[in-house]
Amino acid sequence: MLYLIGTGLYYLNDLPLRAIDVISSCSEVFIERYTNLNDITFIEKLKKITGKNIEVIGREEVESSFITDKAVDKDIALLIPGDPLAATTHFSLVEECYQKNIAVKIIHASSIFSAVGETGLSIYKFGGTTSIPIYTENFHPESFFDTIEKNINCDYHTLVLLEVRDEKNFVKPIEAMKILKTIEEKNNKNIIKWDSVIVLSQLGSDSQTIKIINEKDINNIKPPCAVIIPG
Amino acid sequence: MLYLIGTGLYYLNDLPLRAIDVISSCSEVFIERYTNLNDITFIEKLKKITGKNIEVIGREEVESSFITDKAVDKDIALLIPGDPLAATTHFSLVEECYQKNIAVKIIHASSIFSAVGETGLSIYKFGGTTSIPIYTENFHPESFFDTIEKNINCDYHTLVLLEVRDEKNFVKPIEAMKILKTIEEKNNKNIIKWDSVIVLSQLGSDSQTIKIINEKDINNIKPPCAVIIPG
Repeated sequence: MLYLIGTGLYYLNDLPLRAIDVISSCSEVFIERYTNLNDITFIEKLKKITGKNIEVIGREEVESSFITDKAVDKDIALLIPGDPLAATTHFSLVEECYQKNIAVKIIHASSIFSAVGETGLSIYKFGGTTSIPIYTENFHPESFFDTIEKNINCDYHTLVLLEVRDEKNFVKPIEAMKILKTIEEKNNKNIIKWDSVIVLSQLGSDSQTIKIINEKDINNIKPPCAVIIPG
Repeated sequence: MLYLIGTGLYYLNDLPLRAIDVISSCSEVFIERYTNLNDITFIEKLKKITGKNIEVIGREEVESSFITDKAVDKDIALLIPGDPLAATTHFSLVEECYQKNIAVKIIHASSIFSAVGETGLSIYKFGGTTSIPIYTENFHPESFFDTIEKNINCDYHTLVLLEVRDEKNFVKPIEAMKILKTIEEKNNKNIIKWDSVIVLSQLGSDSQTIKIINEKDINNIKPPCAVIIPG
């Protein structure tokens, strides 16, 4: 059996209370955090509460058969930031389990997809979601703009997730805005309402900020970040 | 101070672990469940764990100043099914707090808005959400169809929430389908891919079902339910 357990929006102890018994009952417990820069300072306490070692694993282990091989004849838990299947990354684990005839159980947790309600915008009025990756010399995708344009045409807001690799290596909201402005100008579009773009930083944490974008005060912004383009 | 604490998708102990300390520290603790038919059998245990009485309150108390009046000079917690601000219902409490100068803190929890990832559909590809209310003799709204149509035109999936009042009084998926078919025929539209509509029942629970709709096996379906119209 494989348990995919969400640890929620920001803090490791955002995980659901009922996950504690599940973790305690598993043979081996793993946690990944390469998909999100959440706070895992609670990990030592969680080890004590559950009586389990909790091993931090990286992309290589998650994307290999490392986890599912173990889950063939043992109960294994994988802790995942946010809600386990909100990003497509972890669905391949579920598919692998189907192929290997391993039962899978998901324990859901909080996620930015519903926490955006904190902006005051109706969550019913969000269209498709997109993301802006870290640009490198030869990697300048622009497809996220199509989603934003489609949403604006439908009067939908767009949640734009900004890639984060570590505390220094992430897409800053101000960079995201520059990228979007450049694409807008290049294509002679004038669709984004720039004075009402919302910036989210560390949503769900005690240090969260939710602000209308302003060049001055977003220089010291901390990841993870997202922006909302209102529809 | 007012704490709005999500109890998550289905079970009361889907609430975040860190909510336990917050509940324990509050002067008074309330729980509402009129917005969702979740399972609160864990309530007696939660009272013991936190050492607090937890009073179930109804729509009248939530929509009056009952809660915010108390939060002016005391720490009050309100437990809310799902993620606190996913529905607009509770945002008016936040607005009231702003007006009365009361600090508000949200503790997010799991929600159907991200749990739909369990269908295998990408959560990035969902457009706006809508809901179908219980029809009465003089109440036959059709506006939810506009959202579905807009989404299909954009290749977006639609999450359609079905109203639930109690275990017997709720919109059954089969009724929702009939309503949608009638509206489609009346307007000479032929846009819904009927053979791939997905029905969700009690998502996040041990008895959850996720099925392609089929008239035979959805008669005994249990609430809360939702349907997904694929884009």
